[in-house]
Amino acid sequence: MVGTGPGGLKHITPAALEAIRQSDTVVGYRTYLDLIPELLVGKEVLSSEMMKEVERCRECLELAAGGRKVALVSGGDPGIYAMAGLVFELARERGDRLRIEVIPGIAALNACAARLGAPLMHDFAAISLSDLLTPWPLIEKRLAAAAQADFVIVLYNPKSRKRTEHIVKARELILGHRGPDTPVGIVTGATRENESVVLTTLGTMLTAEITMQSCVIVGNSMTFTWEHCMVTPRGYGGKYDLLRLQPDMLRK
Amino acid sequence: MVGTGPGGLKHITPAALEAIRQSDTVVGYRTYLDLIPELLVGKEVLSSEMMKEVERCRECLELAAGGRKVALVSGGDPGIYAMAGLVFELARERGDRLRIEVIPGIAALNACAARLGAPLMHDFAAISLSDLLTPWPLIEKRLAAAAQADFVIVLYNPKSRKRTEHIVKARELILGHRGPDTPVGIVTGATRENESVVLTTLGTMLTAEITMQSCVIVGNSMTFTWEHCMVTPRGYGGKYDLLRLQPDMLRK
Repeated sequence: MVGTGPGGLKHITPAALEAIRQSDTVVGYRTYLDLIPELLVGKEVLSSEMMKEVERCRECLELAAGGRKVALVSGGDPGIYAMAGLVFELARERGDRLRIEVIPGIAALNACAARLGAPLMHDFAAISLSDLLTPWPLIEKRLAAAAQADFVIVLYNPKSRKRTEHIVKARELILGHRGPDTPVGIVTGATRENESVVLTTLGTMLTAEITMQSCVIVGNSMTFTWEHCMVTPRGYGGKYDLLRLQPDMLRK
Repeated sequence: MVGTGPGGLKHITPAALEAIRQSDTVVGYRTYLDLIPELLVGKEVLSSEMMKEVERCRECLELAAGGRKVALVSGGDPGIYAMAGLVFELARERGDRLRIEVIPGIAALNACAARLGAPLMHDFAAISLSDLLTPWPLIEKRLAAAAQADFVIVLYNPKSRKRTEHIVKARELILGHRGPDTPVGIVTGATRENESVVLTTLGTMLTAEITMQSCVIVGNSMTFTWEHCMVTPRGYGGKYDLLRLQPDMLRK
């Protein structure tokens, strides 16, 4: 499982390129594979537009069980909200004894945070708003837990064509614990040609464009904006100056 | 601010190398700079063993304000529990109008997750156990919030020579919400020569070696281990039985 990072060629690690170079078969979306045409020469290439996710992973395992070295390429980090888990789940189901390796990549959260400045300097929670495989009440529970414990919150899958209300509900829930002035960063297509970086607030964020490709980062009580950057300090200036800390934040 | 990843040369992105190549002055720990000697030829190099963190960042800003291109090199991702935030904080204090860019790197959480298998396939919370800049009661509050909302939990700074009890307390707190059989992965020095990967459980984790260099990942209620790997499924089989799931329902 090879992660090619957020999109730009400059963010693919040598370890990822080497894994692809050493493979017999490369499986992945055209958009990622088109970045590295010279690495694909002489290899079997299976574009995954042709297969759904589960099929794709099964096909990789089938090929690997047959003795081939297979690189399953995904954008971002295959280990964060991606396909690495599915491959292990299916391999366990098959009972194969394959050597499976995960080559980490720059995930959306790393790339989006970098584009925004430094919002992830302190404790954060990553939450996907997709309820395809997770019951919505559990997602709400996590949003509330993260909001009340002052985590910076990274929202994955904030919106899709069919799910447009989840981000509305998530914002409302977080607003129950944080002020409308809380900085919010929305990064879409980080490091790609169509990259867009929006700095807004919890109060006004819904007027910004949010798509399937967006990652939304909601600041904690200490996060500030400065010169188009969103920054969370490394601590509670805090320990030495508890005045800025909301008193109920320390209550259990 | 340039992130050089977890340690191995193979995990440094071309974007990071290019930023260093284009700089006049490089500031960073010897251990990171020694990985890339050929990039340092002809440059002013300030080894940061000579300076404390705040001094180091101030020095970088001072040099940049004087017109130099400065690369402040850090391991991992400068945007995750690292120095990017401090640089922005100090720049704001100075009131400089400098161009500050963050080049993301493979963070400890990406690298450690990859070494363990796929523990971060679902919602997770990253929590630092260092109470140097954060009041301990707030750390406890976050541990409890993350544990009760079934987040996978990534513990940064689990232990130091002086802070040996924090990991003991954190484990106790999490045990209040999760069973002793919950898988726990401990990765120390990911991708480095001295890398160690330990798969244990919440019940027995304290018998394993945990150091300042370790990252500890505590599974959620669905996390399982298989063939020396730690895997968190992408969803809850309770909502949609995996066996009866149509492939297209697993699409993100």
